Amino acid sequence: MSSPALNLVTITDPDDERVADYVRLRDVSLRRSLEAEHGLFIAEGEKVIRRALEGGYPPRSFLLAPRWIESLADALAEHPDVPIYVVSEAMAEEITGFHVHRGALASLHRGTGRVMADLLGLQRLVVCEDIVDHTNVGAILRSAAGMGWDGCLLAPRAADPLYRRSIKVSMGAVFSLPWARVDSWADAVPTLQEAGFLTLAMALSDDSRPLPDVAQELSPDRKVAILLGTEGDGLSRRWIEQADIVVRIPMGHGIDSLNVAAASAVACYALGPAGRMADPSGPAAAGA
Amino acid sequence: MSSPALNLVTITDPDDERVADYVRLRDVSLRRSLEAEHGLFIAEGEKVIRRALEGGYPPRSFLLAPRWIESLADALAEHPDVPIYVVSEAMAEEITGFHVHRGALASLHRGTGRVMADLLGLQRLVVCEDIVDHTNVGAILRSAAGMGWDGCLLAPRAADPLYRRSIKVSMGAVFSLPWARVDSWADAVPTLQEAGFLTLAMALSDDSRPLPDVAQELSPDRKVAILLGTEGDGLSRRWIEQADIVVRIPMGHGIDSLNVAAASAVACYALGPAGRMADPSGPAAAGA
Repeated sequence: MSSPALNLVTITDPDDERVADYVRLRDVSLRRSLEAEHGLFIAEGEKVIRRALEGGYPPRSFLLAPRWIESLADALAEHPDVPIYVVSEAMAEEITGFHVHRGALASLHRGTGRVMADLLGLQRLVVCEDIVDHTNVGAILRSAAGMGWDGCLLAPRAADPLYRRSIKVSMGAVFSLPWARVDSWADAVPTLQEAGFLTLAMALSDDSRPLPDVAQELSPDRKVAILLGTEGDGLSRRWIEQADIVVRIPMGHGIDSLNVAAASAVACYALGPAGRMADPSGPAAAGA
Repeated sequence: MSSPALNLVTITDPDDERVADYVRLRDVSLRRSLEAEHGLFIAEGEKVIRRALEGGYPPRSFLLAPRWIESLADALAEHPDVPIYVVSEAMAEEITGFHVHRGALASLHRGTGRVMADLLGLQRLVVCEDIVDHTNVGAILRSAAGMGWDGCLLAPRAADPLYRRSIKVSMGAVFSLPWARVDSWADAVPTLQEAGFLTLAMALSDDSRPLPDVAQELSPDRKVAILLGTEGDGLSRRWIEQADIVVRIPMGHGIDSLNVAAASAVACYALGPAGRMADPSGPAAAGA
């Protein structure tokens, strides 16, 4: 069997226009505008690149140290027209501005074209309001996917799930879990309700109900959307007032709240399939 | 009423020996050896300083921009002999090597003198094996305290809960939740079992049991210790084999595992008081 010819291009000048997608990866504000303008995002490391391609994101180009061409050969062969920029590790560092630990980068087109309406037929959604921290958004996607939730919606101000840090922390969940931006911050909650979702605002207001009680009463086939707010101020008053139920995780030891990523994991567990017994008639655990 | 005189010392030279506790706070390896050698740790920000003092840690000194002297006056007055180094924000930056956002630092003695034996009379413990990431240790302490667990044990290689980053992420839980190092990595699990704890290893081995099943069977007054391993490799084989039950959080969407801090939050919720219904006979939630 012969492999198709790959589109290999050796790069020897860090200012080469062809690798402009990869410049200064640690410069957050530059990257924001550059990635938005060109509708691209960067995947880092063999595993993440594979998951992005499997998730249906079309590649614009690859930037690889030579040793990665073989490891990724099967994936690269599926995109024979896409340029593969071959660089030394020193050149990769000159272009990106830092030591690329995993030696492999890809630039991919954003847009799977998913919008809010595409997710409204699902059963269980996590909805991030203004969570601006990429680490938190990545962690929430990872937990939601891991606990068998079906998708994630993000308010307009929430951090970009395709930012390099979000992708990394999500362990690739951003490519396997369907997600979209809400159409409008003001109408997001009513839109979910019209689509049949029970909307649960995670917040500490006085009229909130304890999570275990809400979980216990929830029928497994009910459509549910969990609303999560920023670490600092929590959910907006509007979303709390619009939500069907305000839910709190009971707290002790003088601690006010959990980190939003931990709260999200707990809520996804308690309200989703992961928290239900596998075998309600099973034997008692030894010593329990 | 007159306030006692405070021991105010204005610092004008960043190399002044008296502020040696505060140098180069971002230099992890320097800080590790400096803090170990002198048995000190640094608290940053008014809230954290207050919680550290309330937690019984004796202060060595304070390093404050002038505006913080008044805000902290009551706390400072309780330690009249402890020097308060007064610095401009620029001087604070020269000493510490970064912009001190919260303008207030304290250096405190470590050692509350707590050892493993002091925690064995408690009901619910989280046990960190080789979790070397300060963010994860801080997050685990915050979740454990928040969910009403009683204490935390750490294996010898686990990250320092009193490192600046751990303290910050823990939101001060490191000062309110009792914690100690285990006496010996090899004997930690048997020691817990002899003290009456049911030891639960969080891991994905083939013979693991789903968390909801274990939670369901657990009597509320059973002494429980959750064993947590590193993000990468998880728990050691030894601890897994020694544990009474191996427990897994059911996973979906091709995701292998949760981040250890999220897994810890979920386990503390499911196996502790936070996950029990407040009112089992309460009214059904609207629409649930």
